[in-house]
Amino acid sequence: MAEVPAECVIGVDLGGTKAVAAAVDRELAMRHRARREILRQDLPTLLATLTALVDEVREGVRGEVEGVGFGIPCLIDQDRHLAASSVHLPIEGLAFADVMAERLGIPAFMDNDGNLALLAEHHAGAARGEQNAVMITLGTGVAGGIVIAGELYRGAQGAGAELGHMIVDADGPECGPGCPSRGCLEALCSGSALARDALAFARNAPDSRLGQALAQGRDINGPLVTELAFDGDPDAATLLTRLGEWLGIGLANVANIFNPDVVVVGGGVMAAGELILGPARRVLADRALALPAAHLRVTPARFGADAGVLGAALFARERLRQRVRA
Amino acid sequence: MAEVPAECVIGVDLGGTKAVAAAVDRELAMRHRARREILRQDLPTLLATLTALVDEVREGVRGEVEGVGFGIPCLIDQDRHLAASSVHLPIEGLAFADVMAERLGIPAFMDNDGNLALLAEHHAGAARGEQNAVMITLGTGVAGGIVIAGELYRGAQGAGAELGHMIVDADGPECGPGCPSRGCLEALCSGSALARDALAFARNAPDSRLGQALAQGRDINGPLVTELAFDGDPDAATLLTRLGEWLGIGLANVANIFNPDVVVVGGGVMAAGELILGPARRVLADRALALPAAHLRVTPARFGADAGVLGAALFARERLRQRVRA
Repeated sequence: MAEVPAECVIGVDLGGTKAVAAAVDRELAMRHRARREILRQDLPTLLATLTALVDEVREGVRGEVEGVGFGIPCLIDQDRHLAASSVHLPIEGLAFADVMAERLGIPAFMDNDGNLALLAEHHAGAARGEQNAVMITLGTGVAGGIVIAGELYRGAQGAGAELGHMIVDADGPECGPGCPSRGCLEALCSGSALARDALAFARNAPDSRLGQALAQGRDINGPLVTELAFDGDPDAATLLTRLGEWLGIGLANVANIFNPDVVVVGGGVMAAGELILGPARRVLADRALALPAAHLRVTPARFGADAGVLGAALFARERLRQRVRA
Repeated sequence: MAEVPAECVIGVDLGGTKAVAAAVDRELAMRHRARREILRQDLPTLLATLTALVDEVREGVRGEVEGVGFGIPCLIDQDRHLAASSVHLPIEGLAFADVMAERLGIPAFMDNDGNLALLAEHHAGAARGEQNAVMITLGTGVAGGIVIAGELYRGAQGAGAELGHMIVDADGPECGPGCPSRGCLEALCSGSALARDALAFARNAPDSRLGQALAQGRDINGPLVTELAFDGDPDAATLLTRLGEWLGIGLANVANIFNPDVVVVGGGVMAAGELILGPARRVLADRALALPAAHLRVTPARFGADAGVLGAALFARERLRQRVRA
């Protein structure tokens, strides 16, 4: 049976450590996937890696690709087409989408990864059809997305919705590179924060399972904590509970500020599921104003780790359609 | 010279301690003003006080009034026409606007006081013409307002924009009645918070000017602190600096979440002006992400204490126009 050309676009999700890409057809089916490690790559290496990644996916779908969207963990200055204040990638000040379009020979677009994850969830996932929706993505960092009146809200310059940099504990731990603050959600609820706290615990408690894992030379990171917690380790569970409680403070703020219909929680850290969302919902109920708290549905992302790729593809398709119209 | 009927509406601003009303004409001129104390009144007394207040203003403009708008320091459940979760007034669960319309015999409307203060500033004041604007009103409590794409944002049920209940210090001081949380902006930047901290200081430092004022039986409140600070008292100035620094944390969050063009700061506490805004701007610059912080203009309200009354009148006029259309 001959394959019909599917008018694919490619979505690319850049995280702090890896890039994932896929061709996505009009029915939102992902037709080819590929990934590359990008941790600590310098700019020339990163651009070469991403070019090779997109080319691999194009070949996988025999070149039938109309454009590519990039979701990047970065403030975007949409006025000037620049990646600004990137926390995890060496692309600060770069007209990233324009550079990639030039290299790839197809139209390329970029938006903040948190915005695009919510675009996917709002289009076809856990926030489908909602007028007022917020997404919090717990990955290496913490990304945010906001839908108001059914549309993504990006702020005056496209730099809004940085919910990960909402300060909830003014004297709390230092936030990540690129953020000058402390006690932001990202400093308390991210995979990096979980790894930091787990490592500190492991060093202080060498007889604990985390301490033993450290002594065995294992990498003390979020996935290990989640694995141990599901395996019944109370210390790992306590670390996840505490992370969930901080998320709950963030949810209380989101409820009071936005009175949204739904908050979608996604990202790799959400592999721990209800071990995080349970405490988060409890703190939300305890600390938000009663009316918006009762109205708010808190739900895991439908697309899990795929939300970024799907959202980036949807965004590219949206922008291509606007070009045709304009 | 005969006075032309001016198609006035009445705006009423309910604070925690007093209600102010005025008739407002189409040019936003306030044609008659009146006020009443409402502190700790029970519901029947409060409704009678407000009825007398509005009647006084109607008589002042010879009855030529099309409707009345109320700005109230309260979550509004716009779906059900109810005042919900009021922190400072005994109107929780009441169809407040409907009750007042019945008593007054003219159309009555209500919205959150923070929303309406921003409506006035956005229509003709410090946020005029901006697409993305936020207002923080520092009064007995802390109220908020949000303009997105040129329109007031109220959230799913009309309960959004409660920026005073954004938690910035998770283990901070208890918030006011009606809020179950602690370390909210209202618990740190309101007139009540300032009075609380000033009283604690006065008790601990009887030789200070605040301590002497306490010994003389003076009321230790926000206006006294501001007066002493302008008069050169370093302790009072320190209290205002600290309040301004907490406001700066709130502004950093607003910058990162909304990437707005302007934040307007109003309310009675802003009588201290740059004694508060100076430290607030410094903390904003230190703790927000660089791009939104550099874009953001922070400015005092134009209408000062009148913003609530003007906004309530504008809101009534807006709703009356919608009725005519419908």
